[in-house]
Amino acid sequence: MAIPLKNLDRALNPHTVAVVGDTKARGYRWLKNMSTVRGKLYSVQLDEREFAGIEELGVPNYTSLLDVPDDIDYVLVSVPRAVATRVLHDCIEKQVGGVAFFTSGFAETDTEEGHQLQAELAEMAEDAGLVVIGPNCMGLYNPQAGVRFQPRQKVGFDGPVTFVSQSGSHAGDFSIAAQSAGVRVGKVLSFGNGAVLGNADYLEYFKDDDATRYLAMYVEGLRDGPRFFRQLRETTRRKPVILWKGGMTEAGQRATASHTGALAGPAEVWNALCRQTGAIQASSTLEVIDLLKVLMMLPPFTGDGIALAGGAGGQSVAMTDTFSLAGLRVPTLSDASYAQLGEWFSLVGASFRNPIDLGSNREELDSVLQVLDADENIDCVVMQVRAPFDADDWARVDGQIQALGRFRETAGTPVAAIVYSSRTLEEAEALLRIDERLLAQNVPSFPSYERAATAIRKVIDYYRFLADGVVADGAAPTSP
Amino acid sequence: MAIPLKNLDRALNPHTVAVVGDTKARGYRWLKNMSTVRGKLYSVQLDEREFAGIEELGVPNYTSLLDVPDDIDYVLVSVPRAVATRVLHDCIEKQVGGVAFFTSGFAETDTEEGHQLQAELAEMAEDAGLVVIGPNCMGLYNPQAGVRFQPRQKVGFDGPVTFVSQSGSHAGDFSIAAQSAGVRVGKVLSFGNGAVLGNADYLEYFKDDDATRYLAMYVEGLRDGPRFFRQLRETTRRKPVILWKGGMTEAGQRATASHTGALAGPAEVWNALCRQTGAIQASSTLEVIDLLKVLMMLPPFTGDGIALAGGAGGQSVAMTDTFSLAGLRVPTLSDASYAQLGEWFSLVGASFRNPIDLGSNREELDSVLQVLDADENIDCVVMQVRAPFDADDWARVDGQIQALGRFRETAGTPVAAIVYSSRTLEEAEALLRIDERLLAQNVPSFPSYERAATAIRKVIDYYRFLADGVVADGAAPTSP
Repeated sequence: MAIPLKNLDRALNPHTVAVVGDTKARGYRWLKNMSTVRGKLYSVQLDEREFAGIEELGVPNYTSLLDVPDDIDYVLVSVPRAVATRVLHDCIEKQVGGVAFFTSGFAETDTEEGHQLQAELAEMAEDAGLVVIGPNCMGLYNPQAGVRFQPRQKVGFDGPVTFVSQSGSHAGDFSIAAQSAGVRVGKVLSFGNGAVLGNADYLEYFKDDDATRYLAMYVEGLRDGPRFFRQLRETTRRKPVILWKGGMTEAGQRATASHTGALAGPAEVWNALCRQTGAIQASSTLEVIDLLKVLMMLPPFTGDGIALAGGAGGQSVAMTDTFSLAGLRVPTLSDASYAQLGEWFSLVGASFRNPIDLGSNREELDSVLQVLDADENIDCVVMQVRAPFDADDWARVDGQIQALGRFRETAGTPVAAIVYSSRTLEEAEALLRIDERLLAQNVPSFPSYERAATAIRKVIDYYRFLADGVVADGAAPTSP
Repeated sequence: MAIPLKNLDRALNPHTVAVVGDTKARGYRWLKNMSTVRGKLYSVQLDEREFAGIEELGVPNYTSLLDVPDDIDYVLVSVPRAVATRVLHDCIEKQVGGVAFFTSGFAETDTEEGHQLQAELAEMAEDAGLVVIGPNCMGLYNPQAGVRFQPRQKVGFDGPVTFVSQSGSHAGDFSIAAQSAGVRVGKVLSFGNGAVLGNADYLEYFKDDDATRYLAMYVEGLRDGPRFFRQLRETTRRKPVILWKGGMTEAGQRATASHTGALAGPAEVWNALCRQTGAIQASSTLEVIDLLKVLMMLPPFTGDGIALAGGAGGQSVAMTDTFSLAGLRVPTLSDASYAQLGEWFSLVGASFRNPIDLGSNREELDSVLQVLDADENIDCVVMQVRAPFDADDWARVDGQIQALGRFRETAGTPVAAIVYSSRTLEEAEALLRIDERLLAQNVPSFPSYERAATAIRKVIDYYRFLADGVVADGAAPTSP
């Protein structure tokens, strides 16, 4: 019997949580992770040497899950693999909402014992119709429910982004990096080997989940490619789907086998699947976040004429080359725009041909932006905001940020910022401050020309796919 | 008459420097830049309203260059373009070593007046055989001589790297970023429009300059392509040449025209030129520095079998995919290596197939590295060092850095580190500290998988070119 996906509702939005098998030797990692649970938290541990430590944390402990005097929505299991099935048995009897197995040592070891144990686990779960996440995973991060798998994850908010990942480290990395970038997540799910529920299941579930307005997935392998394809095709019509495929290369596939036991298919198949469904491809945590920033903070647009501003001299050239190489156009402006700018723009050490090197015309930024907004050749404005040269230079920086904010409020043209430094680490404090101020103005910022250009290009392709149902290279979607 | 390149010796290694035309309105920018000159510094300014301000800076001022009671090796001119030729006239009469014109408003404006003035300047310089750098440039940064064009540039050291740039902003950016990265520069030269001396001249000069062991250039346009090609072919046999071409795209070419008046050729021609000469292509300041780090800190090697270590789970997969996509191999290890590792490596949550996920085997890093050093499938080891999770985690980080240092000292296999974070700005302090410690061990570090992989791949291609005189794709070098 397949697991009814509806059952995930309770498991992924838990009010009551139990941690089974946490130990002092692990620093009570899981009980500490779960200390922020908004509802009730219980511990299950039968080793009496652990009782005192658990009590110190203020968590009620029981020697059996069946003794817990409450219904349990979500169970995190951290026991040796040899007793995993015994714990699962209790979970079934207790009729919990769902179980995530942090426990590893299953199919990913590629041993007979590992495969055998995983098959047993899966069979039990399927017979009982019980949601099992993992094994070999970090499980759920739900900031609203206070459920975490890492102490750095913040809680107490909701967000429209769901990230589903076969990798626990990517899931953790994403949740922390998204937080830093101002991208609010509602759920992050690490499901490792996916013995019971796999990529197609989670995709189908989150397709129908109204709280998920943006879905991103890190995928290592697919058990049912055609089903995943069908679900994907339906999902991208409702919400953007960002797919990061691990094991795109032969050596990478060897790595996924050791990681989650996944058998990755060839890259060509994957690329075709994305092209035909309108899924947006990514290849790193930071790229997933870049794409989300464009999707969440810019209005939809399908034109690819970009106005570039704020670079000086060689930087203007580099910005232009980078955006062009990413497949975007950096067109000349309309005659009307040139006529308007020509009236007052000082050309000494400056240029307004696009790229626009402001030179000494910085005070006139609002006017320049208005001209760009009215120009029909321009579909999106991207402006570099450079870190201040010294403390006095903050006035220039803040002036630019304010102008971008006003543009964001009043103009119809999408606008993004690039906050690049060739000394990122040394200038981190200033760069952070600029990013935060841009975020407060609802203007997304990117730390390099390339990352801005790539993310914008890919999101335009998605909107074009939605607009005319054909992919970038003109081929119509076909059945698998 | 062409300028004898030998004349550059004096201009680029100046003992006496004069700044012509600096003003209070500019905050005495140039006199402040030059305050670190190791020899003597003079000011030339005939506006008596400026005298007091210049005196306050402690710089002797003269109303004419001809009155300066000293031979002058290097003159930086910051006067309105209308008087540029008058100043040049004095420089010729004074027989200075060389002149750099910060003054702009020449060919880059694409006006008749601008072209006319630039032609006049060039003709005067050529008639006199005088080194003229620019106009529309920042001139020289020579840390040993204390000559700067930016207050952030440090002085008082020498280095084997020369960077020649048509862009002042790239030249400035490079010099500061190289400093941060521990890449020591000997000279950085910004030459803007290059009215008198151009890319081929500088290339020829630095080809023969023994102090330059690594040459990097940012090029916008070539006046004499065949000569540049011939010089380049000779130079790459003696020292690595990194070329960053601005205006590789049509829109980028429009930007170079507004910037330095340069007419950039098509990208295909440029790519062919690099392939045929063994020049290493770069497309950003940071990539130039990445390449220099590999060239300077790793021994030459031509094999492309990379061992990847230090990633956890999904990170291992991502590292492997990235290195493979960059054209490097992440091969399985030899049977002997597997036999050795198999004796003690714990496989729970770990893997040693390559990529090597250390898991709980971190204490054994020295042993793992020794196995990799002995493995004939492995030409280079790249290890991820992750920022500490908390203060207690520094012991792990330092242990890894020390192990890499020992490997660097004792093993024959090149080794590099990746110090990546998805929250670069927030973790900047820790990342900086790790970078510094790695640098102290002479191990280069890169902030992303992609940047490490790309730089290593390109440098391997250079060494292969040197080894067998053929380029990566198998085509033999041909004449232009």
